[in-house]
Amino acid sequence: MQNVKLAIIGAGSSYTPELIEGLVQEKESLPVGEIAFYDIDEERLEVMTAFCRRYLKHLGHNIPITPTTDRLEAIQGARFVDVQIRVGGNAQRVLDERIPLKYGIVGQETTGPGGMLKALRTIPVMLEIARDVERYSSDAWIINYTNPTGLVTEAVTKYTQAQIAGLCSGGLFPQWRASDALNVPPESIRYDYVGLNHLNFTFNITVDGRPLNEEEFDRVADRASWGAIDPGLIKTLRLIPSPYLQYYFHTSKKINEAVEKEYTRGEEVQRLEAEVFAAYADPDQKAKPEALARRGGGGYSEIALAVMQAIHNNREKIIVVNVPNRGAVRGLPDDAVVEIPCAVDAAGIHGLSVPEVPSTVWGIIAAVKNYEQLAVEAAVKGSRELALMALLAHPLVQDYEIARPLLDELLEANRPYLPTFFDVDGAATAIDPHQ
Amino acid sequence: MQNVKLAIIGAGSSYTPELIEGLVQEKESLPVGEIAFYDIDEERLEVMTAFCRRYLKHLGHNIPITPTTDRLEAIQGARFVDVQIRVGGNAQRVLDERIPLKYGIVGQETTGPGGMLKALRTIPVMLEIARDVERYSSDAWIINYTNPTGLVTEAVTKYTQAQIAGLCSGGLFPQWRASDALNVPPESIRYDYVGLNHLNFTFNITVDGRPLNEEEFDRVADRASWGAIDPGLIKTLRLIPSPYLQYYFHTSKKINEAVEKEYTRGEEVQRLEAEVFAAYADPDQKAKPEALARRGGGGYSEIALAVMQAIHNNREKIIVVNVPNRGAVRGLPDDAVVEIPCAVDAAGIHGLSVPEVPSTVWGIIAAVKNYEQLAVEAAVKGSRELALMALLAHPLVQDYEIARPLLDELLEANRPYLPTFFDVDGAATAIDPHQ
Amino acid sequence: MQNVKLAIIGAGSSYTPELIEGLVQEKESLPVGEIAFYDIDEERLEVMTAFCRRYLKHLGHNIPITPTTDRLEAIQGARFVDVQIRVGGNAQRVLDERIPLKYGIVGQETTGPGGMLKALRTIPVMLEIARDVERYSSDAWIINYTNPTGLVTEAVTKYTQAQIAGLCSGGLFPQWRASDALNVPPESIRYDYVGLNHLNFTFNITVDGRPLNEEEFDRVADRASWGAIDPGLIKTLRLIPSPYLQYYFHTSKKINEAVEKEYTRGEEVQRLEAEVFAAYADPDQKAKPEALARRGGGGYSEIALAVMQAIHNNREKIIVVNVPNRGAVRGLPDDAVVEIPCAVDAAGIHGLSVPEVPSTVWGIIAAVKNYEQLAVEAAVKGSRELALMALLAHPLVQDYEIARPLLDELLEANRPYLPTFFDVDGAATAIDPHQ
Amino acid sequence: MQNVKLAIIGAGSSYTPELIEGLVQEKESLPVGEIAFYDIDEERLEVMTAFCRRYLKHLGHNIPITPTTDRLEAIQGARFVDVQIRVGGNAQRVLDERIPLKYGIVGQETTGPGGMLKALRTIPVMLEIARDVERYSSDAWIINYTNPTGLVTEAVTKYTQAQIAGLCSGGLFPQWRASDALNVPPESIRYDYVGLNHLNFTFNITVDGRPLNEEEFDRVADRASWGAIDPGLIKTLRLIPSPYLQYYFHTSKKINEAVEKEYTRGEEVQRLEAEVFAAYADPDQKAKPEALARRGGGGYSEIALAVMQAIHNNREKIIVVNVPNRGAVRGLPDDAVVEIPCAVDAAGIHGLSVPEVPSTVWGIIAAVKNYEQLAVEAAVKGSRELALMALLAHPLVQDYEIARPLLDELLEANRPYLPTFFDVDGAATAIDPHQ
Repeated sequence: MQNVKLAIIGAGSSYTPELIEGLVQEKESLPVGEIAFYDIDEERLEVMTAFCRRYLKHLGHNIPITPTTDRLEAIQGARFVDVQIRVGGNAQRVLDERIPLKYGIVGQETTGPGGMLKALRTIPVMLEIARDVERYSSDAWIINYTNPTGLVTEAVTKYTQAQIAGLCSGGLFPQWRASDALNVPPESIRYDYVGLNHLNFTFNITVDGRPLNEEEFDRVADRASWGAIDPGLIKTLRLIPSPYLQYYFHTSKKINEAVEKEYTRGEEVQRLEAEVFAAYADPDQKAKPEALARRGGGGYSEIALAVMQAIHNNREKIIVVNVPNRGAVRGLPDDAVVEIPCAVDAAGIHGLSVPEVPSTVWGIIAAVKNYEQLAVEAAVKGSRELALMALLAHPLVQDYEIARPLLDELLEANRPYLPTFFDVDGAATAIDPHQ
Repeated sequence: MQNVKLAIIGAGSSYTPELIEGLVQEKESLPVGEIAFYDIDEERLEVMTAFCRRYLKHLGHNIPITPTTDRLEAIQGARFVDVQIRVGGNAQRVLDERIPLKYGIVGQETTGPGGMLKALRTIPVMLEIARDVERYSSDAWIINYTNPTGLVTEAVTKYTQAQIAGLCSGGLFPQWRASDALNVPPESIRYDYVGLNHLNFTFNITVDGRPLNEEEFDRVADRASWGAIDPGLIKTLRLIPSPYLQYYFHTSKKINEAVEKEYTRGEEVQRLEAEVFAAYADPDQKAKPEALARRGGGGYSEIALAVMQAIHNNREKIIVVNVPNRGAVRGLPDDAVVEIPCAVDAAGIHGLSVPEVPSTVWGIIAAVKNYEQLAVEAAVKGSRELALMALLAHPLVQDYEIARPLLDELLEANRPYLPTFFDVDGAATAIDPHQ
Repeated sequence: MQNVKLAIIGAGSSYTPELIEGLVQEKESLPVGEIAFYDIDEERLEVMTAFCRRYLKHLGHNIPITPTTDRLEAIQGARFVDVQIRVGGNAQRVLDERIPLKYGIVGQETTGPGGMLKALRTIPVMLEIARDVERYSSDAWIINYTNPTGLVTEAVTKYTQAQIAGLCSGGLFPQWRASDALNVPPESIRYDYVGLNHLNFTFNITVDGRPLNEEEFDRVADRASWGAIDPGLIKTLRLIPSPYLQYYFHTSKKINEAVEKEYTRGEEVQRLEAEVFAAYADPDQKAKPEALARRGGGGYSEIALAVMQAIHNNREKIIVVNVPNRGAVRGLPDDAVVEIPCAVDAAGIHGLSVPEVPSTVWGIIAAVKNYEQLAVEAAVKGSRELALMALLAHPLVQDYEIARPLLDELLEANRPYLPTFFDVDGAATAIDPHQ
Repeated sequence: MQNVKLAIIGAGSSYTPELIEGLVQEKESLPVGEIAFYDIDEERLEVMTAFCRRYLKHLGHNIPITPTTDRLEAIQGARFVDVQIRVGGNAQRVLDERIPLKYGIVGQETTGPGGMLKALRTIPVMLEIARDVERYSSDAWIINYTNPTGLVTEAVTKYTQAQIAGLCSGGLFPQWRASDALNVPPESIRYDYVGLNHLNFTFNITVDGRPLNEEEFDRVADRASWGAIDPGLIKTLRLIPSPYLQYYFHTSKKINEAVEKEYTRGEEVQRLEAEVFAAYADPDQKAKPEALARRGGGGYSEIALAVMQAIHNNREKIIVVNVPNRGAVRGLPDDAVVEIPCAVDAAGIHGLSVPEVPSTVWGIIAAVKNYEQLAVEAAVKGSRELALMALLAHPLVQDYEIARPLLDELLEANRPYLPTFFDVDGAATAIDPHQ
């Protein structure tokens, strides 16, 4: 096994050092010989390159880092292309969070209209990256943790031939919580899992093959509630929902909380990131800065490393990944990307068949998937009609009187990032119901 | 072909004369030799029997009417058992409409939590009727226009072997509207149609086999809007939604209108029905009273007669009926009742295969069907947990903070009509998440 | 409703007068104003035109017949394009019947290797016709009774946009037999029906909606045996198989009979057709010649007329037709043409959903459908490999040692009719396993 | 992790020492603390117990072996119940092989009518064993390598709640052959695999994730031909068929070879087994006798050990196992047992979704599965009609004139082993087509 080249697209992200740390920890099973750092933000690229070199040295390991603003240079020859971009940055995220609230609708980074706008901004850029990989590094795997990962992965798998692993740490979340609650090693925990990214459900939990009893389930429910979902609701469902289900099952509460808060999560992140980047820029900073922990959102590196190891070593591993359905989950279209346990090895990512979707939640999964498919098409085609129909299909919007002005305002606020929606002169594409 | 016996369960309904009128019009193709009138309300039964005898005479036709409060007597020997009951009467309907509004949720007879309570009250009674038919008149067809017809039909087809045609005039609605809009005979209009009762969509409309052009579709859209759905929305979707979709696509507007109104639809109906029944009771009243037109909600008799004729004469007819899916609509369970075009003849009701559900609305159909299946199970099992999960699955509720108290209040207000939910002493069944 | 133009492709067929007779009988409900006769055989075309004009006069009706050898002229303006061609004529049919027998394999016009060769010869011609219809008469319906109708219809529906009704009188066969056996009118008989052309099964037979009892079924079985299938087998299956199932369930017997016979069915037909055509050519012959009855194979006109009436009058009729599956039959691909009951009207042909394929025969239907799909692809692509794999997939061949030389001999014997299999110089395409 | 108890049902089998050897090799990862030997043949049980004790000592390891003729005693407390029985012994196998040949039909242990009779004899015994496991050791896993493993597993999964792994070394066969052909380690080879036991196909082969090129595939084809399937056929299909497909693709050749041979495989095995057992009985024999290699048919222990290790250690492993379909393979019923790659760990056996069955072979898989399902039902119900319909559904029989007398003779020859087919007086159940 030879050393592999890793490319990081969006290397200026504050998460990059976490990945570096993981690569050092797993250097035996995933020997990386070169890391290409690519970013469109030259300043961040420079700061992160310098910090990661210091950090690698601090960890007692050496991998050459090559910074570049030439994407093809980064991609060519890479075995893995980690993509962690944020089109429009946190500034646009704040608008995704704030604008829907004005209409009494959840404003969130990946859920609801905010998530759709993030998809509309991100998908055209992701397709460019994927087409580069397809053409210039066709054996490479895109390791995607760019959100909304389900929609991004669906666009890439429908419109390119590039190999992509659409990741989220959400697949490990129930394992972590159950391990905590039951005081058993995480690897003893197994479960069935079905749904979409940020809209999934865990069930049939076992410890070393033994199903949980009711009291154990309740303990896991209390832990998996995570301050997001009412434990009583989890106990009624007998399923562990993704914490993002709070936006569906506690909508009014979440909207009220958001309205009362002075700052959105995006604004908090902006401040924390400024702090973190100041630390990275400090030439004396050699380890992960303390502020990074407060930034949150980690855990991606664990799953990314697991996927890269399974592929590199051709050693099968069951990992929750976003993949095209192709019959794995009944009732959903073949090309719909779903988040399910998959067998990952050098031959690729193979979804495990999901014999049954729980009887209480197959409808909401279908409804949100319908929205997702329309949003992906809207992004690819730059169609206001499809974007409007996506919002009408979304269980958190649905209302025509709300959807129309909300969509107009959101699109206008994202004009610079929506090349497919606005023509060369910047004029909005007219709504034409006959299209 | 011999004369058939028809039983009307709930014969005291104000709609009965409309059916009588239809039977007279179609006496050649559907020769009815006896009509059994059954009702639990003896006064209404008496009034309606007397009026219908006068009305038949007025129409120059004679069919013996046998009033009875013995259900078995009515059912035995019948070829068709028309069921048009309203468990709890309009008094409970008004509560179904009013209580959800207090929680900011649509209050409606068949849609949302109000429709669920109607199902919880009605299904146990319908199952009793169906089991009588199954046992004592197994060749008979139940002609059901008791709402919510989709849920009622699902309960009957899952839990009994009785033959049932779950009807709604909604399947003819697009034909009526297109015929008006295009000034062509209704029978020249054909279309694809898919969904659930009161949650369906019409598409691929043709006139004498020719697809509508855009201008024609837009004219149909304007007419099919019916003051319920914004024509612009219909033109964007390029589908004709059931008018009941107004509660999904114009939720906030409908709630605001309802809050501002002094009376609910149920209360208006109560007043109109009093007026109508006063007329029926008048021994000089021989024809349909003028107030009946204002009562609205007719059209059922047209579709009921079409079904009975197709069965009686073994002459195939394509009619929109609620039937178990059994593979006709992709993505929905086999036992889920769907509202689709069916071929009806003496051999029964055979769903036409629906090759594709429109890409913009398959999610909402699935979401509402998931609610419906949970509500049916809740009704049959008397399970508060399932009723709660049904509301959580419903796109118009979904919110746990709302669903819990709303459900408690609704169940309490329906206590006398929910034998499966309350034990003999009338105590509420405790919520037990472990059930 | 205006008079329609009908085009007959292959008008020189001995079946044409039967269709003419039907058109006269149904002139009220299907008013034909013009018939274009097209054939590549000018002599037959002339004979048939002259005879049919005499025959129409004899029947007391007048429809102008326009003979032409210009296919576009025939097709343009036509509402219905009846196609009844025989590529290679009866001479090739005899080879289809004789060659497989040399290898111990069933030799039959539509079943087994003979049927495949007929498909390989016919499909390229049918695609040309269908593309003409698509381009020059896109509203027209192809009324196909060219065999093998299932494969021909699959090729046309996969590779063109032309509207086609793939017909066979086999869908009426159980009705005729049950009507005879039970002495009831044919229209009182209904049944479920599933499978492929010449490989189908009838079940759930009813008379005026009442299921047959065992004694009645056994009587129908005796009649439906038709000298082809052992009645004991039918009684064991409790299904009525197409008579062509004799080649599967009585293979050895049928092969032995064929080997012992001096003449194949094709040779008999050749002699009968010569006799029939001599009669047609006689200027004094005004009615259908007596020899035609001995020719057999009629009944197509009945179903063709039923389809054309249902479309022309937009009056729904349930008719067994070959249509793309698109979800109607579980377990078969969407693009697989199946033979099932369909609702036919001006809006087209809509398959009824088939909830369950009988548990005893779904496997053989799948196996033969797999062969059919490979044979269609082989015909379209001119691929020896696909033709070989089609024979390996066929339950009547399957054996590699037989399939290879058999295929070679069959292709060679059909060289002039297989433009896609032999290049311009007439050299056989080499077998290349890597294609 | 504590030591596990292993029960071997049919411990007198000549294969037992191979399993013992594997247990010693894998003692670290699968620490077995006790082995219960169960057999109905006391002599064999005694011989095998004594030999295995000597063999264990010879291998330098010690596991207590407890011989018993009380099945419950063996099963109780066991974590794994290995079942390797042969109902009727090799004597009946010889009849399975000889009788069909008299009718010109393949006579084989697991394929065709011989395999059906083996299933009819074996399934009632297996259901008894499985019901014991279900009742007295419900956490145990049945590790089944009793043939026909697909049918046996289907019967157990349909009619009991016992956990069962239906194994065959066939899932490793393509790995072994590809490893040999390409001179790479077996574990570098991955592939897709679909079908039934002894009727499966391997495709999309990769070496360390890289797809084979054409030349490599051809080399694998030559090796996987295994003297059974013509390499040219494999190269045309571009799939690796199970060697048992020789009975379908080379039927006439196999029948001719069998007719010419003096002895059947069963008779050869009888002689070899006598030789092997003589060696086992020799008190000086401490290692596997040389004659065992000539016995052949090994390889089961490798896959059995892999499954037991994955379950015991809760360490996921992708292994080809026979499991109920439940949506994994399109087009086959949910309860149909299929042989596909599965993820095995302590939580059980989860089939990987098979997105596409190769276009050339889905029909034969369906046809044989249809036979299998009928044969399982025939075994469970003791129904001659179902057994007859199973043979009619089998692509190697299908012929009613052959199937009837062949079935009669086979059943008669197996009378003592078919308690469900013959009543207490031993009289044959009459064929009643109305059942």
